Amino acid sequence: MGDVRIALAQIDTCVGDLEANTRSIVEWTRRAAEAGADLVVFPEMTVTGYPIEDLALRASFRRGAESALQATAARLEEEGLGSVTVVVGSVGEQTRREHDAAPARPTNQAVALRHGSVQARYDKHHLPNYGVFDEFRIFAPGTEPCVLEVAGARVGVVVCEDIWQDGGPVAALTRAGVDLLLVLNGSPFEEGKGHVRAELATRRAREVDAPVAYVNMVGGQDDLVFDGGSFVVDAEGRLLARAPQFVEHLLVWGLATRPSDDPATDRPAAAASAARRDRSRAQVAPALDPDEEIYRALVTGLSGYVRKNGFRSVVLGLSGGIDSALVAAISADAIGGENVVGVSMPSRYSSDHSRDDAADLAERIGADYRVQPIKPMVDAFEGELGLEGVAAENLQARVRGVVLMALSNAEGHLVLATGNKSELAVGYSTIYGDAVGGFAPLKDVDKSRVWALARWRNNAAVDAGEVPPIPESSITKPPSAELRPGQVDQDSLPPYELLDEVLDAYVEHAEGRAELLARGLDAAVVDKVLALVDRAEWKRRQYPLGPKVTALAFGRDRRLPITTRWREP
Amino acid sequence: MGDVRIALAQIDTCVGDLEANTRSIVEWTRRAAEAGADLVVFPEMTVTGYPIEDLALRASFRRGAESALQATAARLEEEGLGSVTVVVGSVGEQTRREHDAAPARPTNQAVALRHGSVQARYDKHHLPNYGVFDEFRIFAPGTEPCVLEVAGARVGVVVCEDIWQDGGPVAALTRAGVDLLLVLNGSPFEEGKGHVRAELATRRAREVDAPVAYVNMVGGQDDLVFDGGSFVVDAEGRLLARAPQFVEHLLVWGLATRPSDDPATDRPAAAASAARRDRSRAQVAPALDPDEEIYRALVTGLSGYVRKNGFRSVVLGLSGGIDSALVAAISADAIGGENVVGVSMPSRYSSDHSRDDAADLAERIGADYRVQPIKPMVDAFEGELGLEGVAAENLQARVRGVVLMALSNAEGHLVLATGNKSELAVGYSTIYGDAVGGFAPLKDVDKSRVWALARWRNNAAVDAGEVPPIPESSITKPPSAELRPGQVDQDSLPPYELLDEVLDAYVEHAEGRAELLARGLDAAVVDKVLALVDRAEWKRRQYPLGPKVTALAFGRDRRLPITTRWREP
Repeated sequence: MGDVRIALAQIDTCVGDLEANTRSIVEWTRRAAEAGADLVVFPEMTVTGYPIEDLALRASFRRGAESALQATAARLEEEGLGSVTVVVGSVGEQTRREHDAAPARPTNQAVALRHGSVQARYDKHHLPNYGVFDEFRIFAPGTEPCVLEVAGARVGVVVCEDIWQDGGPVAALTRAGVDLLLVLNGSPFEEGKGHVRAELATRRAREVDAPVAYVNMVGGQDDLVFDGGSFVVDAEGRLLARAPQFVEHLLVWGLATRPSDDPATDRPAAAASAARRDRSRAQVAPALDPDEEIYRALVTGLSGYVRKNGFRSVVLGLSGGIDSALVAAISADAIGGENVVGVSMPSRYSSDHSRDDAADLAERIGADYRVQPIKPMVDAFEGELGLEGVAAENLQARVRGVVLMALSNAEGHLVLATGNKSELAVGYSTIYGDAVGGFAPLKDVDKSRVWALARWRNNAAVDAGEVPPIPESSITKPPSAELRPGQVDQDSLPPYELLDEVLDAYVEHAEGRAELLARGLDAAVVDKVLALVDRAEWKRRQYPLGPKVTALAFGRDRRLPITTRWREP
Repeated sequence: MGDVRIALAQIDTCVGDLEANTRSIVEWTRRAAEAGADLVVFPEMTVTGYPIEDLALRASFRRGAESALQATAARLEEEGLGSVTVVVGSVGEQTRREHDAAPARPTNQAVALRHGSVQARYDKHHLPNYGVFDEFRIFAPGTEPCVLEVAGARVGVVVCEDIWQDGGPVAALTRAGVDLLLVLNGSPFEEGKGHVRAELATRRAREVDAPVAYVNMVGGQDDLVFDGGSFVVDAEGRLLARAPQFVEHLLVWGLATRPSDDPATDRPAAAASAARRDRSRAQVAPALDPDEEIYRALVTGLSGYVRKNGFRSVVLGLSGGIDSALVAAISADAIGGENVVGVSMPSRYSSDHSRDDAADLAERIGADYRVQPIKPMVDAFEGELGLEGVAAENLQARVRGVVLMALSNAEGHLVLATGNKSELAVGYSTIYGDAVGGFAPLKDVDKSRVWALARWRNNAAVDAGEVPPIPESSITKPPSAELRPGQVDQDSLPPYELLDEVLDAYVEHAEGRAELLARGLDAAVVDKVLALVDRAEWKRRQYPLGPKVTALAFGRDRRLPITTRWREP
């Protein structure tokens, strides 16, 4: 029994892009081999991308993934990488009993490749079915644990949710005894989740009495952001190594199978040069400031969505306000200011300072800035329809939506919607108007956080000796939709700090009215906000629906990934 | 052991409307009592409506439902109905072990009420998690079977999916022995599903060696349609009684606990007058023609959506084509022609016959007909933006969308989108244009079926001596979007009959390219249609998305019903 050098390949995959994903596996295995690794482990469902949703139910997709997996094993061997044990994720099929006529069910599988062939397969046991996860819906659970022999060490393999639930494969591996527990993850970013993952890994490390190596994917996929942050803890739960968040990274670390206080230096002399690399790589990346972490998650989500869906540029309306300014700054950081088209669409109610702030912002980030007045179109509609009140306010927003979609159709930009979570929650958004867009970067960012992120981004620029992207007056002026003369948001909403507290309790934590009042919140405020949220939730979801009259209809009975490169072969 | 008179109350509930749902329980129990019933059974989740989706996770909602249930038990007793055993569905809470600190999980519960209190509770065991169902996601499964004693008979109670899966409560009831198996259902309509339900009930009747009484809800809820069609089969699976589809109905039937060839007449003399009513009610409603069944499902879905969401009228664009004509006819049947606003929105490419057909249709159904030219608005956009090609075509559709939404905002109508499933599948639809609407009646109806339904509806009118609602020329002319001069759909699509075959195989049955070619379909047609579908699927799903950065975001991690009357108490 010797020492084992482990590489955690924290990579960015794309759902359905079997060719790019498997090419990435070969490339990162080469880097791992150059770093002296005996074993390289990739994130959950590496071959297929993650999450694949109902693509898993398509037999032709499963056949395509299996072919790509076999071709990858062969190619690793051809390229002289066959002696490295490569653990990847893919879609598998449930082993069936003889004479079982039912169609095969897919599994969420980890596969070990070595010497050009599949050495072992492991099917994920615990299939999450809450929050963003639909896995119990699409996958059959595994029933057998998996232990690999790598350079004499016993390496247990599990997948993501398997360590979030008690019992199951971790308990089986504890009984069997392992020298290391590998965990392949597709763990979406959430504010502060790093601590939860570390505590969990510590618990499982103590349970199996061995180090835990946790590898997570990175990158944006549909509305999920994966932050990476892969890490290793020892059998006591002490952090030995951690990769930075939001970038692809190879984290290399040496497992001393004999007890040692410092496994990373307890290496045989033969691997001395690799061990030198190791000391520089087996780093503990510092934790990020909370605002920076969210900001970088938003940049990662947007850049992944743009790139994986084949766009190269975005277009958005610039109102001079804080929301569109922050979205523009995120866009410039994600894909470069030169790929951002900002359109000022003044109406009769737009103030001069709004237009000045929009132009200022565009100049700061180097965006393509355009001014497109909406008065001629609004006048044409009003001349025909004679609208007033909410109908007239919504009309302005809808004309702007049509302008942005026309530019998207004509020039190929992705349209970004700029509304924030607080506004969306209370319905301060026009369906088919400012809600128009393929991606809404602030969908999950409340207004209080919008200001905090804008300030953080400007301060980061100052610290780096750069021009702050967001005009100061966009941050400090009172927010207004400018749909009526002199209108400001606080005419009809409680202060955003208070609003966001109610929204967090009611929407995020499902607290009822009684719990909200028990927090000491004013009953009139609570009732107003709840009524707004209930109505907005309904309006947001009801466009468009239709009845289901056959076995399958479009919509909620098919859950396909948005971003996928999968095409029928 | 005596005989038992059973009533199946096939009613229409609304999610969250605890007051109306429980009022309905009392009213229908009174009718059942008047018909001499010892036992009345209601559909799945009667108190809360169904499906309640993530509302189940809100503790204040569960408390509200439990209060409504207790109040209903008390009211039944007060109103002299306490001696009837009333079986209803509601949301329950999992019984927890002592010292369990985790929050209570909801259950899908059947509850038996008698003499003002709860006599028994049963938690659904098998929680469907496929297609439209998310139950495993939200509910905890039950573990105990339930047998009621009613007038000396042993009555087993299960809920919906419990009879679709082998094992579980039906097996337990078989071992325990019952005189009758009650099944509470929220079984959504699908084409031809009646046969599947009947076969299933037959299998379970033989398994438990007792009659099965299957009660299903009726009405539209969000994008689901419930067709009712409640029925009773005997222990051999022979159909004893069946309610009509798509209407509320009380199906009354007498269970002879001693063997008898004709249970409905084997009644004690004391219940003679009730038995007379019984003979007229314990009918076997005839099965519907397949086109009529789909048509009535569409009418039911639309009328439920309009009514439960508080609308009284609808507005739609009338192009003179078959899709908008069929939607208008369905609307008139659902809510009355006088509540339908049809807007002709001619462009420079609209033909005279299109306008004539639209006007003719409106007159036939008695709709409020308006003509709103779009040229002034299209000219204003084109003057400012100078569009051509697809951008210009989409512009026309989007101006129409803005017009309909303006009428909706100003006058309170629900906007209907008129696209059919074939067009939506291949992307012959403009996002924020003709896709605008809160409800799309033909979302799940392919073009071949659109023609068949139009012909069926016109023939039904002729049979009834009425004016056929749909102008003949709307049915016979070649379909065209009229976005360019002389354009017809078949310029760029295969014939609809062929298109619909490919779509059915690819979209509905998840067949791959290889399977499609093995059907003998032309490779060029297959490749074209698959490319269109993949792109359209992506376009349809990507508007609008955004990243998730906190524990919960709006969108796919919250699955709330659209239509709900639930408000925080």
